[in-house]
Amino acid sequence: MTRSPDPAELTAQLIRCPSVTPEEGGALLLLADVLTAAGFSCTRVDRNGTPNLFARWGAKGAARSFGFNGHTDVVPPGDIAAWTHPPFSGHQADGWIWGRGATDMKSGVAAFVAAAIARVTEAPPDGAILLAITGDEEGPSRDGTRALLDWMDQTGERMDVCIVGEPSNPDRMGEMIKIGRRGSMTLEIEAQGVQGHAAYPHRAKNPLHALLRLLHQLTDQPLDPGTAHFDPSGLQVTTIDCGNPASNVIPAKARATVNIRFNDAHRSEGLDAMIRDKAAAIAAETGVGFDIQTQVSGESFLTQPGPFVDLVADVVRQATGLDPVLSTSGGTSDARFVKDHCPVLEFGLVGHFMHQVDERVPADQVRQLSAIYRTILDRYFA
Amino acid sequence: MTRSPDPAELTAQLIRCPSVTPEEGGALLLLADVLTAAGFSCTRVDRNGTPNLFARWGAKGAARSFGFNGHTDVVPPGDIAAWTHPPFSGHQADGWIWGRGATDMKSGVAAFVAAAIARVTEAPPDGAILLAITGDEEGPSRDGTRALLDWMDQTGERMDVCIVGEPSNPDRMGEMIKIGRRGSMTLEIEAQGVQGHAAYPHRAKNPLHALLRLLHQLTDQPLDPGTAHFDPSGLQVTTIDCGNPASNVIPAKARATVNIRFNDAHRSEGLDAMIRDKAAAIAAETGVGFDIQTQVSGESFLTQPGPFVDLVADVVRQATGLDPVLSTSGGTSDARFVKDHCPVLEFGLVGHFMHQVDERVPADQVRQLSAIYRTILDRYFA
Repeated sequence: MTRSPDPAELTAQLIRCPSVTPEEGGALLLLADVLTAAGFSCTRVDRNGTPNLFARWGAKGAARSFGFNGHTDVVPPGDIAAWTHPPFSGHQADGWIWGRGATDMKSGVAAFVAAAIARVTEAPPDGAILLAITGDEEGPSRDGTRALLDWMDQTGERMDVCIVGEPSNPDRMGEMIKIGRRGSMTLEIEAQGVQGHAAYPHRAKNPLHALLRLLHQLTDQPLDPGTAHFDPSGLQVTTIDCGNPASNVIPAKARATVNIRFNDAHRSEGLDAMIRDKAAAIAAETGVGFDIQTQVSGESFLTQPGPFVDLVADVVRQATGLDPVLSTSGGTSDARFVKDHCPVLEFGLVGHFMHQVDERVPADQVRQLSAIYRTILDRYFA
Repeated sequence: MTRSPDPAELTAQLIRCPSVTPEEGGALLLLADVLTAAGFSCTRVDRNGTPNLFARWGAKGAARSFGFNGHTDVVPPGDIAAWTHPPFSGHQADGWIWGRGATDMKSGVAAFVAAAIARVTEAPPDGAILLAITGDEEGPSRDGTRALLDWMDQTGERMDVCIVGEPSNPDRMGEMIKIGRRGSMTLEIEAQGVQGHAAYPHRAKNPLHALLRLLHQLTDQPLDPGTAHFDPSGLQVTTIDCGNPASNVIPAKARATVNIRFNDAHRSEGLDAMIRDKAAAIAAETGVGFDIQTQVSGESFLTQPGPFVDLVADVVRQATGLDPVLSTSGGTSDARFVKDHCPVLEFGLVGHFMHQVDERVPADQVRQLSAIYRTILDRYFA
């Protein structure tokens, strides 16, 4: 019988794999070795050069299957000289593990891999455990978790529920479970007017004035007051650019970018149509045309509180003594893709030091997280 | 007795002087020769390298003195190959005089120089005629007409009234006399917020949103409904720039430029204070600071209709058969400086082709303008 790996030690080993997106860096190879040795059937599901690893213990099509999702790629270390310990050293001292990915999220992957191996080794479940691990979550995310889910759909691999092991706790282990995420979309808006002399505005059409009207309408009122599980949707104008150096000239064009983080009161189509309607009304009145390019990063989603959420919350409560908030706050994660496959939530470490110099994690926190995952598996397969 | 020059021929001679700002190009030298020969006392009033010519006929401190103001500098010709005739040729054909400055405003200068010479030659007035001609109206205008007026103040030279010979007629000779000009000011506004992630706006302060509020307040309502002699004041946002390439990042700073053309309902100080008050209120509410740099090109001014305006309008009416509109429209001119010296108005040619390729003027229009100036002098000194 294989001995279960120590999740803290596995974290350090993974940190030593320099897997800056899109480099595999040896991280998925390491995990495939460890998981294969423990009886998992491993498949590389690379797509367009992006490395991905699928692992299953138990029968395909088992009556019950529990899934974990995570990523081994990391953001660049930045100025290596600024690090106290080299970013790919996995240095351990005073109870800390140092390095890029220590919190985001080689530790989370190590925690669920160790928990899964421990469970199948010590108490083989009546069901399947599926691990979908990608090498591109920090990059464009086109061929990462999406590729895994596409492949799973095509080959009949099915998770009944899934935990994404991203850091979910703002400050203390156990204070927050993420049960949904806001949607995110970006609009590039170009206003097209008629150039002219600032002294003769009647002969010109100022695109900035029309753009101002549109953006004022978008920022003057909140999009909504929030919903049962979501904060109010937010809209941010992230840039306006015109580049006109002449203060006596009305410019011909101006551009703005608008980013929207929206809750379950909206879908991207509706928001897009709302903005286009406003733009069309202003265009009709001013003669300034608008060209709008919309990119949707993901729709909002919510895993409704119920048996799965209750199970996880209950385990977290017992393990940490904290009553976890069921939150939908924060940016996007690969849960936005998993939600189309099965109910999904996010629970992981405390998110300190993510993407920063001297990223590090307490070794005991990784072990605590792995123990929580193990208890969740135990309760799920009980 | 000197023969009075033909204003059309003098225009062509001036065009042959390549006096692109700040080059004198021989234009003021030519005028000084012509005027000296006619009995004018000429003084070069150059300042900081800018050439200027002051000429007086009659006694300094005469009981009545009539002034003309104009400029011999021209804007660059642009693509010389695009001109039908070379821009400094003064080519004459089919009744037209071709070249840079043909309308703006070597013709106007030639017209008032010829009229003044004709009057002092044929019927020496009981008074003085003063000509203040600059070589920098198209450039920064710091050491042009301003230098002439400063020097005149210092040396006791005084115009009782003044005509600026800039093109004043939109389409037909005689349809418009300009009796005032709007003021012009430019504000560079920088909004200073706090950078952050677009998903967490509560941790950031979006300078664009604060700037949008300010600019919307400035553009949402007209500054005034217009006054007795002025159109409504106009405010144009001429650029907004932020340069933030990341649609998930709230930027730290954003800049805008605002140009205001204001009538006699305002002074620049009041407008500046109004905008700073609005900015301060938004800053207090949002925490986004504003840095505002204000440049005033000139205050508005109005030469109230009265005997001087009536005299000019009457002569124009009799000469052209048109009833001239007393207008305050258009951009700035050196009248904005002269108005602090004496009552001033602008009457000149039809302003077609100004600053364009193939700038040209009908020779007869220059002669008609010169005859109008002569009649004005006759009526003034009657």
